[in-house]
Amino acid sequence: MNRPLPTRARTLASEVNAAMESEPSAAGPAEPQRSQRRASDRPQRPRTMTSTEEIDNTITRPGSVRINVKGAFIVDPDTSTPAPGLAQGTGNDRGSPTHRETSDIRLPNHTAVVSHIAVDIGGSLIKLVYYSREVDSTDPGGRLNFQIFETDRVDDCVEYMKHLRDKQLELNGSQHGALCVMATGGGAYKFYDKIRDALGVDVLREDEMECLIIGLDFFITEIPREVFTYSETDPMHFVSPRENIYPYMLVNIGSGVSILKVTGPRSYQRVGGTSLGGGTLWGLLSLLTGANTFDDMLEQAATGDNAKVDMLVGDIYGTDYGKIGLKSTAIASSFGKVFRIKKAAEAGAANGIQEDTSTTDVGFTDGDISRSLLYAVSNNIGQIAYLQSQIHNLSDIYFGGTFIRGHRQTMNTLSYAIKFWSKGEKQAYFLRHEGYLGAVGAFLKRQPINWGRRGSFEANDDLANWRKSHKGGVAA
Amino acid sequence: MNRPLPTRARTLASEVNAAMESEPSAAGPAEPQRSQRRASDRPQRPRTMTSTEEIDNTITRPGSVRINVKGAFIVDPDTSTPAPGLAQGTGNDRGSPTHRETSDIRLPNHTAVVSHIAVDIGGSLIKLVYYSREVDSTDPGGRLNFQIFETDRVDDCVEYMKHLRDKQLELNGSQHGALCVMATGGGAYKFYDKIRDALGVDVLREDEMECLIIGLDFFITEIPREVFTYSETDPMHFVSPRENIYPYMLVNIGSGVSILKVTGPRSYQRVGGTSLGGGTLWGLLSLLTGANTFDDMLEQAATGDNAKVDMLVGDIYGTDYGKIGLKSTAIASSFGKVFRIKKAAEAGAANGIQEDTSTTDVGFTDGDISRSLLYAVSNNIGQIAYLQSQIHNLSDIYFGGTFIRGHRQTMNTLSYAIKFWSKGEKQAYFLRHEGYLGAVGAFLKRQPINWGRRGSFEANDDLANWRKSHKGGVAA
Repeated sequence: MNRPLPTRARTLASEVNAAMESEPSAAGPAEPQRSQRRASDRPQRPRTMTSTEEIDNTITRPGSVRINVKGAFIVDPDTSTPAPGLAQGTGNDRGSPTHRETSDIRLPNHTAVVSHIAVDIGGSLIKLVYYSREVDSTDPGGRLNFQIFETDRVDDCVEYMKHLRDKQLELNGSQHGALCVMATGGGAYKFYDKIRDALGVDVLREDEMECLIIGLDFFITEIPREVFTYSETDPMHFVSPRENIYPYMLVNIGSGVSILKVTGPRSYQRVGGTSLGGGTLWGLLSLLTGANTFDDMLEQAATGDNAKVDMLVGDIYGTDYGKIGLKSTAIASSFGKVFRIKKAAEAGAANGIQEDTSTTDVGFTDGDISRSLLYAVSNNIGQIAYLQSQIHNLSDIYFGGTFIRGHRQTMNTLSYAIKFWSKGEKQAYFLRHEGYLGAVGAFLKRQPINWGRRGSFEANDDLANWRKSHKGGVAA
Repeated sequence: MNRPLPTRARTLASEVNAAMESEPSAAGPAEPQRSQRRASDRPQRPRTMTSTEEIDNTITRPGSVRINVKGAFIVDPDTSTPAPGLAQGTGNDRGSPTHRETSDIRLPNHTAVVSHIAVDIGGSLIKLVYYSREVDSTDPGGRLNFQIFETDRVDDCVEYMKHLRDKQLELNGSQHGALCVMATGGGAYKFYDKIRDALGVDVLREDEMECLIIGLDFFITEIPREVFTYSETDPMHFVSPRENIYPYMLVNIGSGVSILKVTGPRSYQRVGGTSLGGGTLWGLLSLLTGANTFDDMLEQAATGDNAKVDMLVGDIYGTDYGKIGLKSTAIASSFGKVFRIKKAAEAGAANGIQEDTSTTDVGFTDGDISRSLLYAVSNNIGQIAYLQSQIHNLSDIYFGGTFIRGHRQTMNTLSYAIKFWSKGEKQAYFLRHEGYLGAVGAFLKRQPINWGRRGSFEANDDLANWRKSHKGGVAA
């Protein structure tokens, strides 16, 4: 059943358009839509040419070509000017994972014109990264903005990109028509024609795995207070940016999971993965519980008790299984209690003892189910990550992807799994921009016009032909 | 919700009792309940003493103490006398996994008295193994019988064991009161008092992992046509019994999964496991589909199409992801399509397009869900098994446990996963008695009275005290 999303999606698209078209004066300073207001409808800054020093810098630093990342830092929404994305203010009721806000990253030393935006189009979510100048600030530089859309609502994302295209002079100083879209993720292929045709601009496709690594390298090496370790007693222990980061492992958890071994700046290998990822959690919970959004599911999980549905070692043994070191509270079988409970309830109903067999009447709640499944998926990913890291002799394990969403139980489970299986010899790391590794990687991969790599995905002839046939722009 | 099972369980208990109490003449020869009729109410064979040769043999062959397994073979129900267990004839409507028949194993050279039965009590299922003489046969020896019960219906199993105790002279030649129960699995601890008190006999507890290995060693080395490899083109390729079997890995899939590295007859280590096992599949499918029995679930899975709910690489990319070798048909995210389908259906319903959001109306069926989850659980176990085998440098991987149930899709998925991940360098093996490794191990572990190991779980003082306090038997 793949019929197009009906009215609700169209409503949302209108909301987004409305937000994009709103005047700067239409909302107070504490309201959303600030980034856009801040960047648009203001006097244009004089265009700054890229300096020789900057070019030299970008050449010697792979993954940061053209973007000067020196001194970059995360804008703290609590103390500095917050910068939620344009559409995020409309997000809370969208039945989507889009309303967790992601802090902007300031690039105080980047003064050059930026003529590109980047999208990472996954199976469930589209992650968008763009640069905006700060015309109301006396400080130099600008900032990276982070935006998320559901892949099913790719049209919303296209609308948003159109807006960025139309406002690019105000936003980032580039000329109208000079915009280029860096696209990665599977949707860069699936929606290539749609985006190119709608925007009438160049769309360059970059490999998903390579972008993940470029993005992660950037976050690890350049951004203070980005990478952290998690434990119950010290939930966000930041790790300082460092130069010597290889080798490491990346576990990227989106709809599915990819596991990459990284031995150098562009030296990586996808060593494995699992189909049990975020899509599995969200899909099963949407069938099993009344939750309509990912955050509802996570909230339910926070209050649930997985022991109501999981079969623990103590349920089987009545005690620990000491000989092999399994405590009575260890989960022996996820959802292992459900079959018998369900059957007992049905048998009861058949005998008039109980009429209703819905979950609330059989002794477990949506929260119990959510917590159990969150544990199951997270534990499983943690174990597979550990096993892969063991095989490839890697000790630093970074967890990225939109599955994590800064959720404490998720990070705790992943972190604990690595610690447990490795007997404390390996370390799990998390990131504040965990969902944007690929998008940031694609953004940083943009190279000066006419450089060699540009034509690697598309012959220049094709480009020229396409430009000819699309002259004047296709999108309304 | 742990209230006692109501009427239905009691009804079943009566059925079992009725079956056990039925006269031999009450049913024709093609009907169930044959083993019991065959073994009981017949003239008693003269008791045979254990020969010196047999004792020597059992001493040199660990795992077969007291039971002469020489020349053992599986009784083919199609060509020889079939021997379904006593209670199995009543099984098809029990909403349980109990009605897949397990062929008996003939022990043509075992002539000694057997005074014990063995149970392996897991989180979901109890596996029972007992020996019966063949009083209507002119051939010497007897056979091993296999019986299964739901753990929730442990009382049925106790009733059955009472019956075996009461008929032990006819069944296996041992004296009334001489029966001993060898118990393993978590329930050997949890239900220890219950079984001992109800039967008034000795209950010896044996370690679960050790029993699994003893049982598996027995099947691999002694039983022809027991171990096989699976592939779509050659679904049951038997492997000849062999002497040189170490090292190997056992993946035992019950409610949960245990993975053991085995380097010698009693040399093993539980290297890992996962909580995503049979209990997870059965539990989730009992919530998600209308299936009431495991076999219904497997039948539904056989006709389902997982691509209706799973997000494939092609769904994300629109094509293969050739660079990393992922075909468009590879599963990127199990259940990864469900969230969007569910939401679209709800949005449709909210707009009057569609009133009902039950699964049949959103474009996928119970079968699709069953197949997806079967794939997800099997693939995951296969991958973890491969990773563990890689870490421990093991090439022979045996899959046991009641999850498999001889089901083709399950075996195919597990087998393919091992082949895929190991690039054909490792081999998955399956067994016809896959669910009975622990029970057979416990059965074979029984040693002559007054041998050293006997007191290892229970001091003789305790035994003496208990015997004193329970003189005359507790059970009615």
